[in-house]
Amino acid sequence: MSDAGERIALDAMGGDNAPATTVAGAVEALRGSGVRTILVGDRDRLEAELRKLGAAEEGLRIEHASEVVGMDEAPAVGIRQKQDSSIRVAARLVREGQAEALISMGNSGATMAAGVLVVGRAPGVDRPPLAGLLPGKGAGTLLLDIGANTDCVPQNLLQFGIMGSLFREVMHRVERPRVALLNVGAEEVKGNQLSLAAHALLRESEVNFVGNAEGVDLFTGDVDVVVCDGFTGNVAIKVMEGTGDLAFGLLRSAATSSNRGRLGGMMLRPALGEIRASFDYAEWGGAPLLGVNGLVFIGHGRSHPGAVERAIVQVDAALSRNLPALLEKGLA
Amino acid sequence: MSDAGERIALDAMGGDNAPATTVAGAVEALRGSGVRTILVGDRDRLEAELRKLGAAEEGLRIEHASEVVGMDEAPAVGIRQKQDSSIRVAARLVREGQAEALISMGNSGATMAAGVLVVGRAPGVDRPPLAGLLPGKGAGTLLLDIGANTDCVPQNLLQFGIMGSLFREVMHRVERPRVALLNVGAEEVKGNQLSLAAHALLRESEVNFVGNAEGVDLFTGDVDVVVCDGFTGNVAIKVMEGTGDLAFGLLRSAATSSNRGRLGGMMLRPALGEIRASFDYAEWGGAPLLGVNGLVFIGHGRSHPGAVERAIVQVDAALSRNLPALLEKGLA
Repeated sequence: MSDAGERIALDAMGGDNAPATTVAGAVEALRGSGVRTILVGDRDRLEAELRKLGAAEEGLRIEHASEVVGMDEAPAVGIRQKQDSSIRVAARLVREGQAEALISMGNSGATMAAGVLVVGRAPGVDRPPLAGLLPGKGAGTLLLDIGANTDCVPQNLLQFGIMGSLFREVMHRVERPRVALLNVGAEEVKGNQLSLAAHALLRESEVNFVGNAEGVDLFTGDVDVVVCDGFTGNVAIKVMEGTGDLAFGLLRSAATSSNRGRLGGMMLRPALGEIRASFDYAEWGGAPLLGVNGLVFIGHGRSHPGAVERAIVQVDAALSRNLPALLEKGLA
Repeated sequence: MSDAGERIALDAMGGDNAPATTVAGAVEALRGSGVRTILVGDRDRLEAELRKLGAAEEGLRIEHASEVVGMDEAPAVGIRQKQDSSIRVAARLVREGQAEALISMGNSGATMAAGVLVVGRAPGVDRPPLAGLLPGKGAGTLLLDIGANTDCVPQNLLQFGIMGSLFREVMHRVERPRVALLNVGAEEVKGNQLSLAAHALLRESEVNFVGNAEGVDLFTGDVDVVVCDGFTGNVAIKVMEGTGDLAFGLLRSAATSSNRGRLGGMMLRPALGEIRASFDYAEWGGAPLLGVNGLVFIGHGRSHPGAVERAIVQVDAALSRNLPALLEKGLA
């Protein structure tokens, strides 16, 4: 539950159906959980959305921004040229201390750029990583980086391990999180130049390093945190998504190709929907960009109001648990 | 269908249940498809397996090898120190022209090392890649490299594209195969240093380059060949395997947790088994190491006799279509 004041800036113009979905999500978070956000974007349009939802009197603060970085715009260009874009204004609120966290369902590259360039990196962090919680047995596995830094040096992966470990401790109450390195084999001698060097660094660090993990180990619940460069991590989550799409597509065909199949499909439908959702990135709510001066949370562009609401409530919980300060302390 | 003579050397000692599974697979390939292999390994044990199968009179040639590289042995060490190992003797048969292809279900690292060091690289090939055909819509997508070369330079990826394209033309009758680069976004400006440079090389090459593919695009049938370094490719296939395990594990739970679920599961069982198998690397038969002087085919250690048989028949078909010579010509 939030304090009375607003501490989350929501890029209300970001996402496929913004601002309708974002405003609806913010209103749901307020009504359902008492969490207040600052809506950043075109004042007239945001006020119109609030009126539509009968929420004009709820007193949600609006911070006007006259521009929007489009979903397909080059992130660096968008963030540099559009000084009055909703994502940049939201980031500025965090930098100036008017808010502690920023959420955007918009252009994810621009959000990462705003996080690094406007909000700023936390002390001791060279490259803030994007962290995604994968579906799986138990409490799941946190994979980072899933796309913020395509080229990494070994030191980056060590920092990812420290941040991921702290994140799981603070957010999921995991004690001494088991940290692994994504690699092509379990043996220490396996890997590319980056993973071999990162292995050595992690082994000598204070994180609870349990060695290499392979792609299959991401979903077994045997490790709590897995680190890799942002290129490999991004490929990994998209292969997971593609495999899920294919498996359930084949299942759908099987469940419509015969009477027997149709009957079976009907019986299993409720369970199938739930399993399917766990592989859908859009259902996760979003992924935090760790290691910035505050908290930046990047949602999926296709997010619906429920996902926006979930993102807001999650970020609020992270702030209540002092995640940014604890990360900074841990990295010192 | 094979010629009368043997042209495939089978590492009969390689794999989890070798030589029982390998000899059984070789006998099935002979009886079912008329394809003769040279069995390489311990003569006494191989003769005993043949007798067990009532196949002592079939006249399968045995080439004695006194040593075996174990599944967990360091590949380079195993292949260098065990000069009379079954994998090394099989590779020597190919180098000496006594066979045209080598199949091993054993230590995959040692098989790759034997391919590169003993069989030798084909002219114009810097780094032979391992190629895996992924399940998916239509004729599937060939991903390479899935694990032979963990660190690559852009030129390697271009060669992978040329070889992958020729492989799909020759083996799967795909005309002008669509070749894509595995990357973190569709736009040309996306990627890490390797993929950005490889993109430029592929664009200017003679392959039918269709741009970047993301992880989700590996299973849609929209591209025929996808190239990447062996680290990323290996993570990709293992994430696919892990996602499949998780999805079907969850499905199994759903199909046993209620009467409704149990009934549905029973109805769908035949279809489920088939879908499940398509995500199981062990069912594929194996993956070719392209760009060596001949053909080296690496099977899964857990292969059963049917998978060994399938590998033999596939390799025989590749030889009948002159794959090695056509690859060499295409690379010239």
